[in-house]
Amino acid sequence: MRRQACRLYNSLIKYLEVDALYVLKIGGKILDDKAKLKAALADFAKIKTPKILVHGGGKRANELCPKLGIEPKMIDGRRITDAPTLEVATMIYAGLLNKTVVSQLQALGCNALGLSGADGNVIQAVKRPVKTIDYGFAGDIVQVNTALLKTLLQQGITPVFCSITHDKAGQLLNTNADTIATSIAIALAGEYAVQLQFHFEKKGVLMNPEDEASFLRSLTHSDYEVHKASGIISAGMIPKLDNAFAAKSAGVASVKIAQTEIL
Amino acid sequence: MRRQACRLYNSLIKYLEVDALYVLKIGGKILDDKAKLKAALADFAKIKTPKILVHGGGKRANELCPKLGIEPKMIDGRRITDAPTLEVATMIYAGLLNKTVVSQLQALGCNALGLSGADGNVIQAVKRPVKTIDYGFAGDIVQVNTALLKTLLQQGITPVFCSITHDKAGQLLNTNADTIATSIAIALAGEYAVQLQFHFEKKGVLMNPEDEASFLRSLTHSDYEVHKASGIISAGMIPKLDNAFAAKSAGVASVKIAQTEIL
Repeated sequence: MRRQACRLYNSLIKYLEVDALYVLKIGGKILDDKAKLKAALADFAKIKTPKILVHGGGKRANELCPKLGIEPKMIDGRRITDAPTLEVATMIYAGLLNKTVVSQLQALGCNALGLSGADGNVIQAVKRPVKTIDYGFAGDIVQVNTALLKTLLQQGITPVFCSITHDKAGQLLNTNADTIATSIAIALAGEYAVQLQFHFEKKGVLMNPEDEASFLRSLTHSDYEVHKASGIISAGMIPKLDNAFAAKSAGVASVKIAQTEIL
Repeated sequence: MRRQACRLYNSLIKYLEVDALYVLKIGGKILDDKAKLKAALADFAKIKTPKILVHGGGKRANELCPKLGIEPKMIDGRRITDAPTLEVATMIYAGLLNKTVVSQLQALGCNALGLSGADGNVIQAVKRPVKTIDYGFAGDIVQVNTALLKTLLQQGITPVFCSITHDKAGQLLNTNADTIATSIAIALAGEYAVQLQFHFEKKGVLMNPEDEASFLRSLTHSDYEVHKASGIISAGMIPKLDNAFAAKSAGVASVKIAQTEIL
Protein backbone atom coordinates (compact mmCIF):
# COMPACT_ATOMS: atom_id res chain seq x y z
CA MET A 1 0.00 0.00 0.00
CA ARG A 2 2.82 2.35 0.96
CA ARG A 3 4.78 1.39 -2.16
CA GLN A 4 1.74 2.07 -4.31
CA ALA A 5 1.34 5.49 -2.67
CA CYS A 6 5.01 6.17 -3.24
CA ARG A 7 4.78 5.22 -6.93
CA LEU A 8 1.67 7.35 -7.33
CA TYR A 9 3.48 10.27 -5.70
CA ASN A 10 6.48 9.87 -8.00
CA SER A 11 4.21 9.76 -11.07
CA LEU A 12 2.41 12.85 -9.87
CA ILE A 13 5.70 14.70 -9.36
CA LYS A 14 6.71 13.76 -12.89
CA TYR A 15 3.33 14.81 -14.26
CA LEU A 16 3.40 18.14 -12.44
CA GLU A 17 7.03 18.62 -13.45
CA VAL A 18 8.11 19.54 -9.96
CA ASP A 19 11.90 19.46 -9.79
CA ALA A 20 13.53 17.05 -7.43
CA LEU A 21 15.87 18.49 -4.81
CA TYR A 22 18.20 16.39 -2.68
CA VAL A 23 19.16 17.73 0.76
CA LEU A 24 21.91 15.78 2.54
CA LYS A 25 23.07 16.36 6.09
CA ILE A 26 26.44 14.99 7.13
CA GLY A 27 27.68 15.05 10.70
CA GLY A 28 30.89 15.21 12.70
CA LYS A 29 31.70 11.50 12.43
CA ILE A 30 32.19 11.86 8.68
CA LEU A 31 33.92 15.25 8.84
CA ASP A 32 36.48 13.86 11.28
CA ASP A 33 37.44 10.95 9.00
CA LYS A 34 39.21 12.02 5.78
CA ALA A 35 38.51 8.77 3.91
CA LYS A 36 34.83 8.68 4.89
CA LEU A 37 34.40 12.35 3.99
CA LYS A 38 36.02 11.81 0.59
CA ALA A 39 33.73 8.85 -0.13
CA ALA A 40 30.59 10.70 1.03
CA LEU A 41 31.44 13.76 -1.08
CA ALA A 42 32.19 11.59 -4.13
CA ASP A 43 28.74 9.97 -3.82
CA PHE A 44 27.10 13.36 -3.28
CA ALA A 45 28.86 14.95 -6.27
CA LYS A 46 27.46 12.23 -8.55
CA ILE A 47 23.83 13.13 -7.81
CA LYS A 48 22.34 14.71 -10.93
CA THR A 49 19.39 16.60 -9.42
CA PRO A 50 19.78 20.01 -7.79
CA LYS A 51 21.18 19.43 -4.31
CA ILE A 52 22.13 21.06 -1.02
CA LEU A 53 24.64 19.84 1.55
CA VAL A 54 24.48 20.70 5.25
CA HIS A 55 27.39 19.80 7.49
CA GLY A 56 27.78 19.69 11.23
CA GLY A 57 30.84 20.25 13.35
CA GLY A 58 33.02 17.39 14.50
CA LYS A 59 35.84 17.20 16.96
CA ARG A 60 38.06 19.96 15.54
CA ALA A 61 36.21 22.66 17.50
CA ASN A 62 36.39 20.56 20.67
CA GLU A 63 40.13 20.09 20.11
CA LEU A 64 40.75 23.77 19.48
CA CYS A 65 38.91 25.07 22.57
CA PRO A 66 41.30 23.74 25.26
CA LYS A 67 44.30 25.00 23.25
CA LEU A 68 42.79 28.47 23.51
CA GLY A 69 41.96 28.05 27.19
CA ILE A 70 38.22 27.68 26.52
CA GLU A 71 36.51 25.05 28.64
CA PRO A 72 33.61 23.27 26.92
CA LYS A 73 30.36 23.93 28.73
CA MET A 74 27.63 21.32 28.52
CA ILE A 75 24.18 21.14 30.15
CA ASP A 76 22.11 17.97 29.65
CA GLY A 77 24.49 16.86 26.89
CA ARG A 78 23.99 20.10 24.96
CA ARG A 79 26.79 22.51 24.29
CA ILE A 80 26.48 25.98 25.78
CA THR A 81 27.77 28.51 23.27
CA ASP A 82 29.52 31.31 25.14
CA ALA A 83 31.24 34.10 23.17
CA PRO A 84 34.68 32.41 22.87
CA THR A 85 33.04 29.09 21.88
CA LEU A 86 31.02 30.88 19.18
CA GLU A 87 34.27 32.35 17.79
CA VAL A 88 35.80 28.87 17.60
CA ALA A 89 32.63 27.43 16.03
CA THR A 90 32.67 30.21 13.43
CA MET A 91 36.35 29.56 12.65
CA ILE A 92 35.97 25.80 12.34
CA TYR A 93 32.46 25.36 10.90
CA ALA A 94 32.22 28.40 8.57
CA GLY A 95 35.96 28.55 7.87
CA LEU A 96 37.99 25.37 7.90
CA LEU A 97 35.28 22.72 7.44
CA ASN A 98 33.04 24.62 5.04
CA LYS A 99 35.86 25.66 2.71
CA THR A 100 37.47 22.21 2.85
CA VAL A 101 34.18 20.60 1.81
CA VAL A 102 33.57 23.23 -0.89
CA SER A 103 37.05 22.87 -2.41
CA GLN A 104 36.77 19.07 -2.41
CA LEU A 105 33.37 19.22 -4.13
CA GLN A 106 34.79 21.68 -6.67
CA ALA A 107 37.55 19.15 -7.44
CA LEU A 108 34.81 16.54 -8.02
CA GLY A 109 33.13 18.77 -10.61
CA CYS A 110 30.32 19.88 -8.27
CA ASN A 111 29.92 23.66 -8.32
CA ALA A 112 29.65 24.08 -4.54
CA LEU A 113 29.21 27.40 -2.73
CA GLY A 114 29.55 27.64 1.03
CA LEU A 115 27.02 29.52 3.10
CA SER A 116 26.32 30.39 6.68
CA GLY A 117 22.85 31.66 7.50
CA ALA A 118 24.24 35.21 7.54
CA ASP A 119 25.31 35.04 3.88
CA GLY A 120 22.59 36.62 1.79
CA ASN A 121 20.50 36.46 4.99
CA VAL A 122 19.55 32.93 3.92
CA ILE A 123 18.78 31.68 7.42
CA GLN A 124 17.65 34.15 10.02
CA ALA A 125 17.54 32.96 13.61
CA VAL A 126 16.89 34.33 17.06
CA LYS A 127 19.10 33.83 20.12
CA ARG A 128 17.37 31.09 22.08
CA PRO A 129 15.29 32.69 24.83
CA VAL A 130 16.43 31.80 28.35
CA LYS A 131 13.91 29.65 30.20
CA THR A 132 15.60 27.35 32.70
CA ILE A 133 18.87 27.08 30.75
CA ASP A 134 20.85 29.85 29.06
CA TYR A 135 22.26 28.19 25.95
CA GLY A 136 24.28 31.30 25.10
CA PHE A 137 24.68 32.14 21.42
CA ALA A 138 22.49 29.29 20.20
CA GLY A 139 20.17 30.25 17.35
CA ASP A 140 16.62 29.06 16.75
CA ILE A 141 15.66 29.45 13.09
CA VAL A 142 12.86 31.90 12.34
CA GLN A 143 13.10 32.17 8.54
CA VAL A 144 14.73 30.57 5.51
CA ASN A 145 14.90 32.95 2.55
CA THR A 146 14.41 30.71 -0.45
CA ALA A 147 14.77 33.26 -3.28
CA LEU A 148 18.58 33.24 -3.25
CA LEU A 149 18.69 29.45 -2.83
CA LYS A 150 16.45 29.01 -5.87
CA THR A 151 18.62 31.39 -7.91
CA LEU A 152 21.75 29.44 -6.98
CA LEU A 153 20.13 26.06 -7.70
CA GLN A 154 18.89 27.31 -11.07
CA GLN A 155 22.47 28.29 -11.94
CA GLY A 156 23.65 24.74 -11.22
CA ILE A 157 25.24 25.74 -7.94
CA THR A 158 25.20 23.46 -4.90
CA PRO A 159 24.83 25.38 -1.64
CA VAL A 160 26.90 23.95 1.23
CA PHE A 161 25.69 25.06 4.66
CA CYS A 162 27.63 25.17 7.88
CA SER A 163 25.77 25.32 11.18
CA ILE A 164 26.19 29.05 11.81
CA THR A 165 23.25 31.46 11.43
CA HIS A 166 22.66 35.08 12.44
CA ASP A 167 19.96 37.31 13.90
CA LYS A 168 20.12 40.06 11.20
CA ALA A 169 21.22 42.44 13.97
CA GLY A 170 24.93 41.64 13.78
CA GLN A 171 25.04 38.55 15.98
CA LEU A 172 26.23 35.20 14.65
CA LEU A 173 24.57 32.17 16.23
CA ASN A 174 25.38 28.48 16.55
CA THR A 175 22.54 26.34 15.18
CA ASN A 176 22.07 22.58 15.10
CA ALA A 177 22.89 21.21 11.63
CA ASP A 178 19.98 18.68 11.64
CA THR A 179 17.63 21.60 12.27
CA ILE A 180 19.20 23.62 9.46
CA ALA A 181 18.77 20.74 7.00
CA THR A 182 15.17 20.25 8.16
CA SER A 183 14.31 23.95 7.91
CA ILE A 184 15.78 24.23 4.40
CA ALA A 185 13.94 21.09 3.25
CA ILE A 186 10.64 22.41 4.64
CA ALA A 187 11.12 25.89 3.18
CA LEU A 188 11.69 24.47 -0.30
CA ALA A 189 9.07 21.69 -0.07
CA GLY A 190 6.45 23.89 -1.74
CA GLU A 191 8.49 24.20 -4.92
CA TYR A 192 10.57 21.07 -5.12
CA ALA A 193 9.98 17.39 -4.43
CA VAL A 194 12.54 17.40 -1.62
CA GLN A 195 14.39 14.26 -0.58
CA LEU A 196 15.91 14.87 2.84
CA GLN A 197 18.63 12.43 3.82
CA PHE A 198 20.37 12.41 7.20
CA HIS A 199 23.71 10.64 6.93
CA PHE A 200 24.16 8.48 10.02
CA GLU A 201 26.96 6.21 11.23
CA LYS A 202 24.49 3.33 11.79
CA LYS A 203 22.46 1.58 9.10
CA GLY A 204 19.37 3.42 10.28
CA VAL A 205 17.20 3.73 13.37
CA LEU A 206 18.09 0.65 15.43
CA MET A 207 15.74 -1.32 17.65
CA ASN A 208 18.83 -2.57 19.49
CA PRO A 209 21.78 -0.15 19.56
CA GLU A 210 24.20 -3.08 19.76
CA ASP A 211 22.83 -4.79 16.63
CA GLU A 212 23.15 -3.13 13.20
CA ALA A 213 20.81 -5.75 11.75
CA SER A 214 17.99 -4.39 13.92
CA PHE A 215 17.64 -1.24 11.81
CA LEU A 216 14.13 -0.27 10.76
CA ARG A 217 13.34 0.00 7.05
CA SER A 218 10.63 2.50 7.90
CA LEU A 219 9.17 4.24 10.91
CA THR A 220 5.71 5.75 11.34
CA HIS A 221 5.05 8.50 13.84
CA SER A 222 2.79 6.28 15.94
CA ASP A 223 5.49 3.57 16.09
CA TYR A 224 8.01 6.27 17.03
CA GLU A 225 5.79 7.32 19.95
CA VAL A 226 5.52 3.70 21.10
CA HIS A 227 9.30 3.10 20.88
CA LYS A 228 10.00 6.37 22.66
CA ALA A 229 7.59 5.52 25.48
CA SER A 230 9.16 2.08 25.91
CA GLY A 231 12.68 3.53 25.93
CA ILE A 232 13.84 1.67 22.79
CA ILE A 233 14.45 4.98 21.06
CA SER A 234 16.16 7.38 23.41
CA ALA A 235 18.49 10.30 24.04
CA GLY A 236 20.43 11.44 20.97
CA MET A 237 18.00 9.96 18.44
CA ILE A 238 15.01 11.93 19.72
CA PRO A 239 15.90 15.42 18.41
CA LYS A 240 16.99 13.86 15.11
CA LEU A 241 13.71 11.97 14.75
CA ASP A 242 11.68 14.99 15.85
CA ASN A 243 13.33 16.93 13.01
CA ALA A 244 12.68 14.09 10.56
CA PHE A 245 8.99 13.82 11.43
CA ALA A 246 8.61 17.61 11.38
CA ALA A 247 9.99 17.60 7.82
CA LYS A 248 7.71 14.74 6.75
CA SER A 249 4.57 16.32 8.18
CA ALA A 250 5.47 19.68 6.56
CA GLY A 251 5.41 18.20 3.06
CA VAL A 252 8.98 17.06 2.43
CA ALA A 253 8.51 14.28 -0.13
CA SER A 254 10.97 11.80 1.32
CA VAL A 255 12.84 11.79 4.64
CA LYS A 256 15.43 9.17 5.53
CA ILE A 257 17.79 8.61 8.44
CA ALA A 258 20.44 6.42 6.82
CA GLN A 259 18.26 3.58 5.44
CA THR A 260 15.23 4.21 7.66
CA GLU A 261 12.39 5.82 5.73
CA ILE A 262 10.34 8.21 7.84
CA LEU A 263 6.64 7.78 7.08
CA MET B 1 42.82 68.62 -18.72
CA ARG B 2 42.55 65.55 -16.50
CA ARG B 3 39.32 66.88 -14.97
CA GLN B 4 37.88 67.43 -18.42
CA ALA B 5 38.82 63.88 -19.40
CA CYS B 6 37.24 62.61 -16.21
CA ARG B 7 34.01 64.52 -16.87
CA LEU B 8 33.96 63.27 -20.44
CA TYR B 9 34.44 59.72 -19.20
CA ASN B 10 31.59 60.06 -16.69
CA SER B 11 29.27 61.44 -19.38
CA LEU B 12 30.22 58.59 -21.67
CA ILE B 13 29.49 56.04 -18.95
CA LYS B 14 26.10 57.63 -18.41
CA TYR B 15 25.41 57.70 -22.13
CA LEU B 16 26.43 54.09 -22.60
CA GLU B 17 24.46 53.15 -19.50
CA VAL B 18 27.31 51.14 -18.07
CA ASP B 19 26.56 50.37 -14.43
CA ALA B 20 28.92 51.64 -11.81
CA LEU B 21 30.53 49.09 -9.51
CA TYR B 22 32.43 49.98 -6.36
CA VAL B 23 35.16 47.58 -5.19
CA LEU B 24 36.61 48.32 -1.74
CA LYS B 25 39.57 46.57 -0.18
CA ILE B 26 40.03 46.83 3.58
CA GLY B 27 43.09 45.52 5.37
CA GLY B 28 44.16 44.15 8.71
CA LYS B 29 44.53 47.50 10.44
CA ILE B 30 40.77 48.09 10.13
CA LEU B 31 39.77 44.51 10.87
CA ASP B 32 41.76 44.57 14.12
CA ASP B 33 40.00 47.71 15.40
CA LYS B 34 36.31 47.21 16.21
CA ALA B 35 35.40 50.91 16.10
CA LYS B 36 37.25 51.53 12.81
CA LEU B 37 35.70 48.42 11.25
CA LYS B 38 32.22 49.50 12.32
CA ALA B 39 32.73 52.97 10.83
CA ALA B 40 34.18 51.61 7.57
CA LEU B 41 31.31 49.12 7.16
CA ALA B 42 28.72 51.81 7.92
CA ASP B 43 30.19 54.00 5.15
CA PHE B 44 30.37 51.03 2.78
CA ALA B 45 26.78 49.98 3.47
CA LYS B 46 25.54 53.46 2.47
CA ILE B 47 26.92 53.20 -1.07
CA LYS B 48 24.00 52.89 -3.47
CA THR B 49 25.72 51.35 -6.51
CA PRO B 50 26.44 47.62 -6.76
CA LYS B 51 29.51 46.92 -4.65
CA ILE B 52 32.04 44.30 -3.60
CA LEU B 53 34.13 44.19 -0.44
CA VAL B 54 37.48 42.41 -0.17
CA HIS B 55 39.08 42.02 3.23
CA GLY B 56 42.56 41.02 4.30
CA GLY B 57 43.71 39.25 7.42
CA GLY B 58 44.85 41.14 10.46
CA LYS B 59 46.55 40.06 13.62
CA ARG B 60 44.08 37.35 14.71
CA ALA B 61 45.79 34.69 12.59
CA ASN B 62 49.21 35.77 13.89
CA GLU B 63 47.88 35.55 17.45
CA LEU B 64 46.34 32.13 16.94
CA CYS B 65 49.41 30.47 15.40
CA PRO B 66 51.66 30.46 18.49
CA LYS B 67 48.76 29.19 20.64
CA LEU B 68 48.62 26.18 18.31
CA GLY B 69 52.39 25.76 18.31
CA ILE B 70 52.74 27.10 14.75
CA GLU B 71 55.74 29.37 14.23
CA PRO B 72 55.21 32.12 11.67
CA LYS B 73 57.56 31.72 8.74
CA MET B 74 58.61 34.81 6.82
CA ILE B 75 61.01 35.27 3.91
CA ASP B 76 61.75 38.82 2.70
CA GLY B 77 58.81 40.09 4.77
CA ARG B 78 56.38 37.71 3.08
CA ARG B 79 54.54 35.03 4.94
CA ILE B 80 55.25 31.44 3.98
CA THR B 81 52.01 29.48 4.07
CA ASP B 82 52.75 25.97 5.29
CA ALA B 83 49.85 23.52 5.81
CA PRO B 84 49.11 24.44 9.46
CA THR B 85 49.30 28.17 8.64
CA LEU B 86 46.85 27.67 5.76
CA GLU B 87 44.42 25.97 8.18
CA VAL B 88 44.64 28.94 10.54
CA ALA B 89 44.23 31.40 7.65
CA THR B 90 41.14 29.49 6.46
CA MET B 91 39.67 29.51 9.98
CA ILE B 92 40.29 33.20 10.58
CA TYR B 93 39.86 34.76 7.13
CA ALA B 94 37.06 32.61 5.66
CA GLY B 95 35.46 31.83 9.03
CA LEU B 96 35.69 34.37 11.81
CA LEU B 97 36.49 37.57 9.89
CA ASN B 98 34.35 36.92 6.83
CA LYS B 99 31.23 35.97 8.78
CA THR B 100 31.73 38.81 11.28
CA VAL B 101 31.89 41.33 8.41
CA VAL B 102 28.90 39.72 6.64
CA SER B 103 26.72 39.71 9.76
CA GLN B 104 27.61 43.35 10.53
CA LEU B 105 26.77 44.42 6.95
CA GLN B 106 23.49 42.49 7.17
CA ALA B 107 22.65 44.46 10.32
CA LEU B 108 23.33 47.67 8.35
CA GLY B 109 20.81 46.64 5.68
CA CYS B 110 23.45 45.59 3.16
CA ASN B 111 22.68 42.13 1.75
CA ALA B 112 26.23 40.78 2.05
CA LEU B 113 27.31 37.28 1.06
CA GLY B 114 30.74 35.94 2.00
CA LEU B 115 32.90 34.18 -0.54
CA SER B 116 36.27 32.53 -0.80
CA GLY B 117 37.60 31.88 -4.27
CA ALA B 118 36.54 28.23 -3.91
CA ASP B 119 32.85 29.16 -3.53
CA GLY B 120 31.18 28.83 -6.90
CA ASN B 121 34.76 28.59 -8.25
CA VAL B 122 34.74 32.38 -8.38
CA ILE B 123 38.51 32.77 -8.13
CA GLN B 124 40.70 29.99 -9.40
CA ALA B 125 44.38 30.15 -8.54
CA VAL B 126 47.51 28.08 -8.92
CA LYS B 127 49.97 27.23 -6.15
CA ARG B 128 52.85 29.64 -6.68
CA PRO B 129 55.61 27.85 -8.58
CA VAL B 130 58.85 27.50 -6.65
CA LYS B 131 61.66 29.57 -8.13
CA THR B 132 64.13 30.66 -5.46
CA ILE B 133 61.56 30.72 -2.63
CA ASP B 134 58.86 28.14 -1.81
CA TYR B 135 55.95 30.24 -0.58
CA GLY B 136 53.99 27.11 0.32
CA PHE B 137 50.22 27.25 -0.18
CA ALA B 138 50.22 30.74 -1.69
CA GLY B 139 47.88 31.12 -4.65
CA ASP B 140 48.43 33.16 -7.79
CA ILE B 141 45.12 33.99 -9.48
CA VAL B 142 44.55 32.51 -12.92
CA GLN B 143 40.85 33.24 -13.44
CA VAL B 144 37.93 35.22 -12.01
CA ASN B 145 34.58 33.74 -13.03
CA THR B 146 32.34 36.76 -13.42
CA ALA B 147 29.02 35.06 -14.28
CA LEU B 148 28.14 34.25 -10.67
CA LEU B 149 29.33 37.66 -9.47
CA LYS B 150 27.10 39.38 -12.01
CA THR B 151 24.11 37.24 -10.96
CA LEU B 152 24.66 38.14 -7.31
CA LEU B 153 25.12 41.85 -8.06
CA GLN B 154 21.95 41.85 -10.17
CA GLN B 155 20.06 40.40 -7.21
CA GLY B 156 21.22 43.27 -5.00
CA ILE B 157 23.72 41.10 -3.17
CA THR B 158 27.10 42.43 -2.04
CA PRO B 159 29.86 39.81 -2.34
CA VAL B 160 32.38 39.95 0.52
CA PHE B 161 35.66 38.22 -0.30
CA CYS B 162 38.22 36.82 2.08
CA SER B 163 41.75 36.19 0.87
CA ILE B 164 41.45 32.42 0.37
CA THR B 165 41.27 30.93 -3.14
CA HIS B 166 41.58 27.38 -4.50
CA ASP B 167 43.12 25.47 -7.39
CA LYS B 168 39.94 23.59 -8.47
CA ALA B 169 41.76 20.36 -7.59
CA GLY B 170 40.86 20.36 -3.89
CA GLN B 171 43.60 22.65 -2.55
CA LEU B 172 42.77 25.89 -0.75
CA LEU B 173 45.35 28.66 -1.22
CA ASN B 174 46.25 31.85 0.60
CA THR B 175 46.11 34.86 -1.74
CA ASN B 176 46.96 38.51 -1.20
CA ALA B 177 43.79 40.56 -0.65
CA ASP B 178 45.05 43.54 -2.72
CA THR B 179 45.58 41.15 -5.63
CA ILE B 180 42.10 39.68 -5.19
CA ALA B 181 40.51 43.15 -5.26
CA THR B 182 42.57 44.07 -8.33
CA SER B 183 41.74 40.85 -10.19
CA ILE B 184 38.02 41.23 -9.49
CA ALA B 185 38.06 44.87 -10.59
CA ILE B 186 39.87 43.99 -13.82
CA ALA B 187 37.62 41.00 -14.57
CA LEU B 188 34.51 43.17 -14.26
CA ALA B 189 35.96 46.27 -15.96
CA GLY B 190 34.53 45.23 -19.32
CA GLU B 191 30.97 45.34 -18.04
CA TYR B 192 30.96 47.90 -15.28
CA ALA B 193 32.56 51.28 -14.71
CA VAL B 194 34.58 49.96 -11.79
CA GLN B 195 35.81 52.22 -9.00
CA LEU B 196 38.55 50.39 -7.12
CA GLN B 197 39.35 51.83 -3.71
CA PHE B 198 42.13 50.55 -1.46
CA HIS B 199 41.47 51.56 2.12
CA PHE B 200 44.75 52.65 3.69
CA GLU B 201 45.72 53.84 7.17
CA LYS B 202 47.48 56.93 5.70
CA LYS B 203 45.79 59.74 3.77
CA GLY B 204 47.24 58.36 0.57
CA VAL B 205 50.62 57.72 -1.02
CA LEU B 206 53.03 59.87 1.02
CA MET B 207 56.13 61.62 -0.29
CA ASN B 208 57.42 61.62 3.29
CA PRO B 209 56.24 58.69 5.44
CA GLU B 210 56.48 60.88 8.56
CA ASP B 211 54.22 63.62 7.17
CA GLU B 212 50.54 62.92 6.42
CA ALA B 213 50.31 66.28 4.66
CA SER B 214 52.74 65.01 2.02
CA PHE B 215 50.12 62.72 0.46
CA LEU B 216 49.77 62.84 -3.31
CA ARG B 217 46.40 63.76 -4.79
CA SER B 218 47.30 61.78 -7.87
CA LEU B 219 50.12 59.66 -9.20
CA THR B 220 51.03 58.85 -12.79
CA HIS B 221 52.95 55.75 -13.73
CA SER B 222 55.95 57.73 -14.89
CA ASP B 223 56.05 59.67 -11.58
CA TYR B 224 55.74 56.33 -9.76
CA GLU B 225 58.81 55.04 -11.63
CA VAL B 226 60.74 58.19 -10.73
CA HIS B 227 59.76 58.01 -7.01
CA LYS B 228 60.56 54.29 -6.91
CA ALA B 229 64.00 54.87 -8.46
CA SER B 230 64.78 57.63 -5.97
CA GLY B 231 63.63 55.48 -3.03
CA ILE B 232 60.79 57.83 -1.99
CA ILE B 233 58.27 55.06 -2.61
CA SER B 234 59.57 51.80 -1.21
CA ALA B 235 58.99 48.37 0.31
CA GLY B 236 55.38 47.73 1.31
CA MET B 237 53.87 50.32 -1.04
CA ILE B 238 55.37 48.78 -4.18
CA PRO B 239 53.16 45.65 -4.50
CA LYS B 240 50.11 47.78 -3.64
CA LEU B 241 50.97 50.37 -6.30
CA ASP B 242 51.84 47.66 -8.84
CA ASN B 243 48.34 46.27 -8.29
CA ALA B 244 46.80 49.73 -8.58
CA PHE B 245 48.57 50.56 -11.85
CA ALA B 246 47.78 47.09 -13.24
CA ALA B 247 44.09 47.78 -12.57
CA LYS B 248 44.24 51.22 -14.14
CA SER B 249 46.00 50.04 -17.29
CA ALA B 250 43.52 47.14 -17.64
CA GLY B 251 40.55 49.49 -17.92
CA VAL B 252 39.36 49.96 -14.34
CA ALA B 253 37.65 53.36 -14.49
CA SER B 254 38.98 54.77 -11.23
CA VAL B 255 41.66 53.47 -8.88
CA LYS B 256 42.44 55.13 -5.55
CA ILE B 257 44.76 54.35 -2.65
CA ALA B 258 43.06 56.24 0.16
CA GLN B 259 42.90 59.77 -1.38
CA THR B 260 45.59 59.24 -4.01
CA GLU B 261 44.09 58.86 -7.48
CA ILE B 262 46.07 56.49 -9.71
CA LEU B 263 46.33 57.91 -13.22
